[in-house]
Amino acid sequence: MTQAPLVLPDPADPRLTRRVVGVDQTGARVETSVVVERPLTLYLNAREIVTMMTIGDHPEELALGYLLNQAMLKPTDIVDAVDYDDDLGVVVVRTPAETNFETKLKKKTLTSGCAQGTAFGDLMEALDEVRLPRAELRTSWLYRLAHAINTTPSLYLEAGAIHGCVLCRRDRPLVYMEDVGRHNAVDKIAGWMFRNGESGGDKIFYTTGRLTSEMVIKTARMGIPILVSRSGFTAWGVELANKLGLTLIGRAKGKRFVALAGAERIVFDQDLAYVEEESARHRRKGAGDE
Amino acid sequence: MTQAPLVLPDPADPRLTRRVVGVDQTGARVETSVVVERPLTLYLNAREIVTMMTIGDHPEELALGYLLNQAMLKPTDIVDAVDYDDDLGVVVVRTPAETNFETKLKKKTLTSGCAQGTAFGDLMEALDEVRLPRAELRTSWLYRLAHAINTTPSLYLEAGAIHGCVLCRRDRPLVYMEDVGRHNAVDKIAGWMFRNGESGGDKIFYTTGRLTSEMVIKTARMGIPILVSRSGFTAWGVELANKLGLTLIGRAKGKRFVALAGAERIVFDQDLAYVEEESARHRRKGAGDE
Repeated sequence: MTQAPLVLPDPADPRLTRRVVGVDQTGARVETSVVVERPLTLYLNAREIVTMMTIGDHPEELALGYLLNQAMLKPTDIVDAVDYDDDLGVVVVRTPAETNFETKLKKKTLTSGCAQGTAFGDLMEALDEVRLPRAELRTSWLYRLAHAINTTPSLYLEAGAIHGCVLCRRDRPLVYMEDVGRHNAVDKIAGWMFRNGESGGDKIFYTTGRLTSEMVIKTARMGIPILVSRSGFTAWGVELANKLGLTLIGRAKGKRFVALAGAERIVFDQDLAYVEEESARHRRKGAGDE
Repeated sequence: MTQAPLVLPDPADPRLTRRVVGVDQTGARVETSVVVERPLTLYLNAREIVTMMTIGDHPEELALGYLLNQAMLKPTDIVDAVDYDDDLGVVVVRTPAETNFETKLKKKTLTSGCAQGTAFGDLMEALDEVRLPRAELRTSWLYRLAHAINTTPSLYLEAGAIHGCVLCRRDRPLVYMEDVGRHNAVDKIAGWMFRNGESGGDKIFYTTGRLTSEMVIKTARMGIPILVSRSGFTAWGVELANKLGLTLIGRAKGKRFVALAGAERIVFDQDLAYVEEESARHRRKGAGDE
């Protein structure tokens, strides 16, 4: 039984792209679509946290996910409301009491001067509590997921210059988010999981972005045991994945992939003779797109 | 007369990549290279500014370029010394007197709490002074540059998952820097220009990364009138480039490119019948690599 994904990109949303005019290599006039990036300022209660550049869809999920992934909000914290003001480009996450993060920040501001810097230590600390579950990844799921994701209408296919992240279960894409920054796309998924009370243990996380330490940390914090990308690895990403027991699969294009951590979760059930090499037709067009 | 580039990637440097072992799609053991990312903490005099994740080459150029591109240092500021400590992962930029930025920061820390946020307004302000010169971009240079860059031995070709930025004059790559973050690669070039007293007016800037507002702002701050990428555009990047009079060329692969700002600088002197489409052989392998 196939069920439709719960959240999909909406490339037809006129707010997300703009038509612009230019010239091509022959000097001829061309019209093309480009993605929009707009500032979104995030408040946690009365405190201004950060201004993010985002395409602007799912601001509530982005706000919650950012705070969760920066360990400024704990998964057990209660959120009263998330108020988004489209005109001002402001989103406010409200909790009934001052959060642990706000209390800490008061003590640390004078020494650090930068909220981002302060949080990083906490981020690594919080990883000590992560225990990723046993799980299975069948290679047949992997190829079906890649095919489904690459052929789904998206802002990427419409305008390029964007990242995608997809929360999956077995061979089914559930939630597909895009953004100019790959971390925004991840954060939107984390926020969606928090709002919908979804846990990560039975999920697979697919990203178009590189498998850096930050990406590994965020996936582990979401409790997801398997991270897949069509892009490459960094050494620290691989090292952290091994330490955390996360399955890390990269350079997944056409038939090929490489697993550099947690390969024991992989079940090689796919007959590779039946997997197509990536054709130009459904290749994501962004060689080098970041 | 062809001259050799002044700075090139050094994929043979053992500090920049690590060999790791994994399995491929058939379950067979594979050994592969991945890029290293390490933390580098930057001080401006006594003030801790930021910890960056970087591959670790050219730390002095990265430090100077970061400060310049964040408008924490002005091109006219005098720098006494840049001290790098490899063991500690610390780089200190020393100026004879407290910089204008440090003075401002003291006033602002209490309201903002984040040095990064504080600086963004200043960054936009500083753009008011930018006047980009008349310049010429011949399409024959563009194709020769792309070919030279794509066939230069690099960390990208060795391990993927990395960004490249190249400072060029006419059809010659001068300085080719790579890093895990595309902004680090740009900053290293800005730092190199500052240290070597190079101005931007007669240069072309090539990046593998997307043409976002930040990339446009940094290029304009370096005084470079032409920005080229194999990746795509964001709407704000295009808008800013038009406002600043910057020539913005994207999706440059094989024969194709699109100019979405400043097309009047382009001279279409290349006979396209003699340009190869990008072959798999010298295609950068990172479809989707960020």
